[in-house]
Amino acid sequence: MWIRVLSPAECTQVLSDHRIAYLACAKEERPYVVPIYYAYWDHALYAFSMPGRKIEWMRANAIVSLLVEEKERGREWKSVVIEGRYEELPDSVGHKVERDRCWALLSKHANWWEPGALKPVTPPLSNHSEHIFYRILIDRVSGREAKEGR
Amino acid sequence: MWIRVLSPAECTQVLSDHRIAYLACAKEERPYVVPIYYAYWDHALYAFSMPGRKIEWMRANAIVSLLVEEKERGREWKSVVIEGRYEELPDSVGHKVERDRCWALLSKHANWWEPGALKPVTPPLSNHSEHIFYRILIDRVSGREAKEGR
Repeated sequence: MWIRVLSPAECTQVLSDHRIAYLACAKEERPYVVPIYYAYWDHALYAFSMPGRKIEWMRANAIVSLLVEEKERGREWKSVVIEGRYEELPDSVGHKVERDRCWALLSKHANWWEPGALKPVTPPLSNHSEHIFYRILIDRVSGREAKEGR
Repeated sequence: MWIRVLSPAECTQVLSDHRIAYLACAKEERPYVVPIYYAYWDHALYAFSMPGRKIEWMRANAIVSLLVEEKERGREWKSVVIEGRYEELPDSVGHKVERDRCWALLSKHANWWEPGALKPVTPPLSNHSEHIFYRILIDRVSGREAKEGR
Protein backbone atom coordinates (compact mmCIF):
# COMPACT_ATOMS: atom_id res chain seq x y z
CA MET A 1 0.00 0.00 0.00
CA TRP A 2 1.13 3.55 -0.61
CA ILE A 3 -0.41 6.75 0.63
CA ARG A 4 -0.64 10.08 -1.14
CA VAL A 5 -2.15 13.44 -0.26
CA LEU A 6 -5.25 14.49 -2.23
CA SER A 7 -5.33 17.88 -3.94
CA PRO A 8 -8.07 20.35 -2.91
CA ALA A 9 -9.93 19.52 -6.16
CA GLU A 10 -9.77 15.80 -5.37
CA CYS A 11 -11.08 16.43 -1.85
CA THR A 12 -14.00 18.37 -3.33
CA GLN A 13 -14.70 15.46 -5.68
CA VAL A 14 -14.92 13.02 -2.77
CA LEU A 15 -17.26 15.36 -0.89
CA SER A 16 -19.45 15.77 -3.99
CA ASP A 17 -19.62 12.05 -4.69
CA HIS A 18 -20.81 11.02 -1.22
CA ARG A 19 -23.67 11.67 1.19
CA ILE A 20 -22.55 10.23 4.53
CA ALA A 21 -20.19 12.05 6.87
CA TYR A 22 -19.11 11.41 10.45
CA LEU A 23 -19.54 14.67 12.30
CA ALA A 24 -17.84 15.44 15.60
CA CYS A 25 -18.85 18.36 17.76
CA ALA A 26 -17.66 19.28 21.25
CA LYS A 27 -19.15 20.72 24.42
CA GLU A 28 -16.46 22.06 26.66
CA GLU A 29 -13.87 19.27 26.34
CA ARG A 30 -16.35 16.46 25.61
CA PRO A 31 -16.56 15.29 21.97
CA TYR A 32 -19.58 13.63 20.36
CA VAL A 33 -19.59 11.81 17.01
CA VAL A 34 -22.61 10.95 14.85
CA PRO A 35 -23.27 10.08 11.20
CA ILE A 36 -25.01 12.72 9.13
CA TYR A 37 -26.49 12.73 5.66
CA TYR A 38 -25.39 15.76 3.63
CA ALA A 39 -25.27 17.34 0.20
CA TYR A 40 -22.17 19.25 -0.88
CA TRP A 41 -22.08 22.36 -2.90
CA ASP A 42 -20.14 25.60 -3.11
CA HIS A 43 -17.64 24.92 -0.32
CA ALA A 44 -20.23 23.79 2.24
CA LEU A 45 -22.05 20.68 3.42
CA TYR A 46 -25.85 21.11 3.73
CA ALA A 47 -27.96 18.94 6.01
CA PHE A 48 -31.20 18.59 7.95
CA SER A 49 -31.55 17.37 11.49
CA MET A 50 -34.22 16.85 14.07
CA PRO A 51 -33.58 18.77 17.30
CA GLY A 52 -31.24 16.94 19.64
CA ARG A 53 -27.85 16.81 21.25
CA LYS A 54 -25.69 17.59 18.22
CA ILE A 55 -27.77 20.67 17.31
CA GLU A 56 -27.68 21.95 20.90
CA TRP A 57 -23.93 21.43 21.08
CA MET A 58 -23.24 23.04 17.69
CA ARG A 59 -25.36 26.04 18.62
CA ALA A 60 -23.17 26.47 21.70
CA ASN A 61 -19.88 25.75 19.89
CA ALA A 62 -19.87 25.97 16.10
CA ILE A 63 -16.46 24.33 15.60
CA VAL A 64 -16.83 20.85 14.08
CA SER A 65 -14.77 18.13 12.42
CA LEU A 66 -16.09 15.83 9.69
CA LEU A 67 -14.82 12.73 7.97
CA VAL A 68 -15.96 11.43 4.59
CA GLU A 69 -14.69 8.09 3.34
CA GLU A 70 -14.61 6.37 -0.02
CA LYS A 71 -14.04 2.65 -0.14
CA GLU A 72 -12.50 1.57 -3.39
CA ARG A 73 -11.38 -1.77 -4.80
CA GLY A 74 -10.12 -4.23 -2.20
CA ARG A 75 -8.37 -2.41 0.60
CA GLU A 76 -8.03 0.89 -1.24
CA TRP A 77 -9.65 4.01 0.15
CA LYS A 78 -9.85 7.78 0.12
CA SER A 79 -10.46 9.78 3.26
CA VAL A 80 -11.26 13.48 3.60
CA VAL A 81 -11.19 15.40 6.90
CA ILE A 82 -12.85 18.79 7.27
CA GLU A 83 -12.38 21.46 9.88
CA GLY A 84 -15.51 23.57 9.72
CA ARG A 85 -18.11 25.73 11.37
CA TYR A 86 -21.82 25.12 11.94
CA GLU A 87 -24.24 27.68 10.55
CA GLU A 88 -27.97 27.34 11.04
CA LEU A 89 -30.21 28.40 8.15
CA PRO A 90 -33.57 29.34 9.65
CA ASP A 91 -36.64 29.72 7.46
CA SER A 92 -37.06 33.29 8.51
CA VAL A 93 -34.03 34.52 6.63
CA GLY A 94 -34.69 32.71 3.39
CA HIS A 95 -32.53 29.95 1.89
CA LYS A 96 -35.53 28.43 0.13
CA VAL A 97 -33.47 27.52 -2.95
CA GLU A 98 -30.81 25.71 -0.92
CA ARG A 99 -33.41 24.10 1.32
CA ASP A 100 -35.48 22.73 -1.55
CA ARG A 101 -32.46 21.50 -3.45
CA CYS A 102 -30.96 19.88 -0.37
CA TRP A 103 -34.23 18.25 0.66
CA ALA A 104 -34.78 16.87 -2.85
CA LEU A 105 -31.36 15.23 -2.74
CA LEU A 106 -31.54 13.94 0.79
CA SER A 107 -35.16 12.92 1.27
CA LYS A 108 -34.62 9.84 -0.89
CA HIS A 109 -32.89 8.26 2.07
CA ALA A 110 -34.49 10.21 4.88
CA ASN A 111 -35.33 7.22 7.02
CA TRP A 112 -31.95 5.70 6.59
CA TRP A 113 -29.72 8.55 7.54
CA GLU A 114 -31.37 9.96 10.61
CA PRO A 115 -30.85 7.46 13.41
CA GLY A 116 -33.63 7.83 15.88
CA ALA A 117 -35.44 10.56 13.98
CA LEU A 118 -39.16 10.65 13.94
CA LYS A 119 -40.38 9.84 10.49
CA PRO A 120 -41.10 13.19 8.88
CA VAL A 121 -44.77 13.48 8.05
CA THR A 122 -44.19 16.52 5.89
CA PRO A 123 -40.97 17.58 4.24
CA PRO A 124 -39.29 20.50 5.99
CA LEU A 125 -40.49 23.08 3.53
CA SER A 126 -43.11 24.77 5.65
CA ASN A 127 -42.36 27.40 8.25
CA HIS A 128 -43.42 25.07 11.03
CA SER A 129 -41.17 22.10 10.33
CA GLU A 130 -39.32 20.62 13.26
CA HIS A 131 -36.36 19.93 10.97
CA ILE A 132 -33.39 22.20 11.40
CA PHE A 133 -31.60 23.13 8.20
CA TYR A 134 -27.91 23.91 8.51
CA ARG A 135 -24.62 23.96 6.69
CA ILE A 136 -21.02 23.32 7.62
CA LEU A 137 -18.72 25.97 6.22
CA ILE A 138 -15.36 24.44 5.36
CA ASP A 139 -12.38 26.21 6.91
CA ARG A 140 -9.83 23.57 6.03
CA VAL A 141 -9.91 20.32 4.13
CA SER A 142 -7.32 17.59 3.74
CA GLY A 143 -7.43 14.18 2.18
CA ARG A 144 -5.48 11.02 1.63
CA GLU A 145 -5.65 8.10 -0.71
CA ALA A 146 -4.33 4.57 -0.18
CA LYS A 147 -3.60 2.40 -3.18
CA GLU A 148 -2.15 -1.05 -3.59
CA GLY A 149 1.02 -1.53 -5.64
CA ARG A 150 2.72 1.56 -6.97
CA MET B 1 -38.75 2.07 9.20
CA TRP B 2 -38.96 1.74 12.93
CA ILE B 3 -36.31 2.45 15.52
CA ARG B 4 -35.64 0.63 18.76
CA VAL B 5 -33.09 1.00 21.52
CA LEU B 6 -30.49 -1.77 21.82
CA SER B 7 -29.93 -3.48 25.16
CA PRO B 8 -26.44 -3.31 26.72
CA ALA B 9 -25.84 -6.93 25.62
CA GLU B 10 -26.81 -6.08 22.05
CA CYS B 11 -24.47 -3.08 22.08
CA THR B 12 -21.64 -5.35 23.23
CA GLN B 13 -22.45 -7.75 20.41
CA VAL B 14 -22.13 -4.99 17.82
CA LEU B 15 -18.81 -3.86 19.31
CA SER B 16 -17.53 -7.47 19.30
CA ASP B 17 -18.60 -8.12 15.72
CA HIS B 18 -16.85 -5.12 14.19
CA ARG B 19 -13.35 -3.62 13.90
CA ILE B 20 -13.89 -0.09 12.58
CA ALA B 21 -14.92 2.81 14.82
CA TYR B 22 -15.09 6.55 14.26
CA LEU B 23 -13.30 8.17 17.17
CA ALA B 24 -13.75 11.80 18.15
CA CYS B 25 -11.41 13.55 20.55
CA ALA B 26 -11.32 17.22 21.53
CA LYS B 27 -8.68 19.84 22.29
CA GLU B 28 -10.18 22.71 24.19
CA GLU B 29 -13.42 23.15 22.22
CA ARG B 30 -12.11 21.81 18.89
CA PRO B 31 -13.25 18.28 17.94
CA TYR B 32 -11.36 15.90 15.64
CA VAL B 33 -12.77 12.71 14.11
CA VAL B 34 -10.82 9.81 12.59
CA PRO B 35 -11.44 6.14 11.82
CA ILE B 36 -9.67 3.62 14.02
CA TYR B 37 -9.26 -0.11 13.84
CA TYR B 38 -9.98 -1.80 17.17
CA ALA B 39 -10.58 -5.08 18.95
CA TYR B 40 -13.21 -5.27 21.70
CA TRP B 41 -12.97 -7.23 24.86
CA ASP B 42 -13.92 -6.93 28.48
CA HIS B 43 -15.64 -3.55 28.33
CA ALA B 44 -12.88 -1.83 26.39
CA LEU B 45 -11.73 -1.15 22.82
CA TYR B 46 -8.04 -1.91 22.18
CA ALA B 47 -6.08 -0.28 19.39
CA PHE B 48 -2.66 0.68 18.05
CA SER B 49 -1.70 3.99 16.56
CA MET B 50 1.31 5.73 15.14
CA PRO B 51 2.15 8.99 16.98
CA GLY B 52 0.10 11.91 15.70
CA ARG B 53 -2.63 14.41 16.38
CA LYS B 54 -5.21 12.10 17.91
CA ILE B 55 -2.68 10.59 20.36
CA GLU B 56 -1.43 14.06 21.37
CA TRP B 57 -4.98 15.26 21.87
CA MET B 58 -6.10 12.20 23.85
CA ARG B 59 -3.04 12.45 26.07
CA ALA B 60 -4.10 16.01 26.90
CA ASN B 61 -7.83 15.20 27.22
CA ALA B 62 -8.81 11.57 27.67
CA ILE B 63 -12.55 12.06 27.06
CA VAL B 64 -13.59 10.55 23.72
CA SER B 65 -16.70 9.55 21.78
CA LEU B 66 -16.87 6.60 19.40
CA LEU B 67 -19.37 5.36 16.87
CA VAL B 68 -19.60 1.80 15.53
CA GLU B 69 -22.03 1.01 12.75
CA GLU B 70 -23.51 -2.17 11.34
CA LYS B 71 -25.10 -2.05 7.91
CA GLU B 72 -27.73 -4.72 7.52
CA ARG B 73 -30.05 -5.71 4.72
CA GLY B 74 -31.19 -2.83 2.51
CA ARG B 75 -31.53 0.32 4.55
CA GLU B 76 -31.44 -1.39 7.94
CA TRP B 77 -28.69 -0.57 10.40
CA LYS B 78 -27.46 -0.71 13.98
CA SER B 79 -25.49 2.10 15.53
CA VAL B 80 -23.63 2.15 18.85
CA VAL B 81 -22.26 5.30 20.50
CA ILE B 82 -19.68 5.14 23.27
CA GLU B 83 -18.66 7.74 25.79
CA GLY B 84 -15.24 6.70 26.98
CA ARG B 85 -11.79 7.51 28.23
CA TYR B 86 -8.39 7.03 26.59
CA GLU B 87 -5.84 4.98 28.48
CA GLU B 88 -2.35 4.43 27.12
CA LEU B 89 -0.77 1.02 27.69
CA PRO B 90 2.98 1.50 27.60
CA ASP B 91 5.32 -1.45 27.28
CA SER B 92 6.99 -0.61 30.53
CA VAL B 93 4.02 -1.59 32.68
CA GLY B 94 3.26 -4.86 30.95
CA HIS B 95 0.08 -5.65 28.99
CA LYS B 96 1.93 -8.16 26.84
CA VAL B 97 -1.06 -10.53 26.72
CA GLU B 98 -3.46 -7.81 25.55
CA ARG B 99 -0.90 -6.38 23.16
CA ASP B 100 -0.16 -9.70 21.48
CA ARG B 101 -3.82 -10.66 21.24
CA CYS B 102 -4.80 -7.27 19.88
CA TRP B 103 -1.96 -7.18 17.37
CA ALA B 104 -2.80 -10.68 16.13
CA LEU B 105 -6.38 -9.59 15.48
CA LEU B 106 -5.61 -6.24 13.95
CA SER B 107 -2.43 -6.78 11.97
CA LYS B 108 -4.35 -8.66 9.29
CA HIS B 109 -5.59 -5.33 8.03
CA ALA B 110 -2.78 -3.10 9.25
CA ASN B 111 -2.29 -1.25 6.00
CA TRP B 112 -5.94 -0.66 5.52
CA TRP B 113 -6.94 0.81 8.82
CA GLU B 114 -4.19 3.29 9.50
CA PRO B 115 -4.63 6.16 7.07
CA GLY B 116 -1.28 7.76 6.52
CA ALA B 117 0.63 5.41 8.74
CA LEU B 118 4.06 4.32 7.79
CA LYS B 119 4.03 0.67 6.93
CA PRO B 120 5.17 -1.10 10.07
CA VAL B 121 8.41 -2.94 9.42
CA THR B 122 8.16 -4.87 12.64
CA PRO B 123 5.05 -5.59 14.68
CA PRO B 124 4.79 -3.49 17.83
CA LEU B 125 5.99 -6.24 20.12
CA SER B 126 9.44 -4.91 20.87
CA ASN B 127 10.17 -2.25 23.42
CA HIS B 128 11.24 0.16 20.72
CA SER B 129 8.15 0.14 18.56
CA GLU B 130 6.81 3.48 17.44
CA HIS B 131 3.27 2.11 17.73
CA ILE B 132 1.30 3.32 20.69
CA PHE B 133 -0.96 0.73 22.26
CA TYR B 134 -4.05 2.06 24.01
CA ARG B 135 -7.55 1.23 25.07
CA ILE B 136 -10.79 3.13 25.36
CA LEU B 137 -12.56 2.40 28.63
CA ILE B 138 -16.31 2.53 28.13
CA ASP B 139 -18.13 4.82 30.55
CA ARG B 140 -21.47 4.73 28.76
CA VAL B 141 -22.82 2.93 25.74
CA SER B 142 -26.07 3.32 23.86
CA GLY B 143 -27.35 1.84 20.64
CA ARG B 144 -30.18 1.92 18.17
CA GLU B 145 -31.48 -0.33 15.48
CA ALA B 146 -33.54 0.61 12.41
CA LYS B 147 -35.64 -2.03 10.71
CA GLU B 148 -38.01 -1.97 7.80
CA GLY B 149 -41.64 -2.99 8.30
CA ARG B 150 -42.77 -3.82 11.83
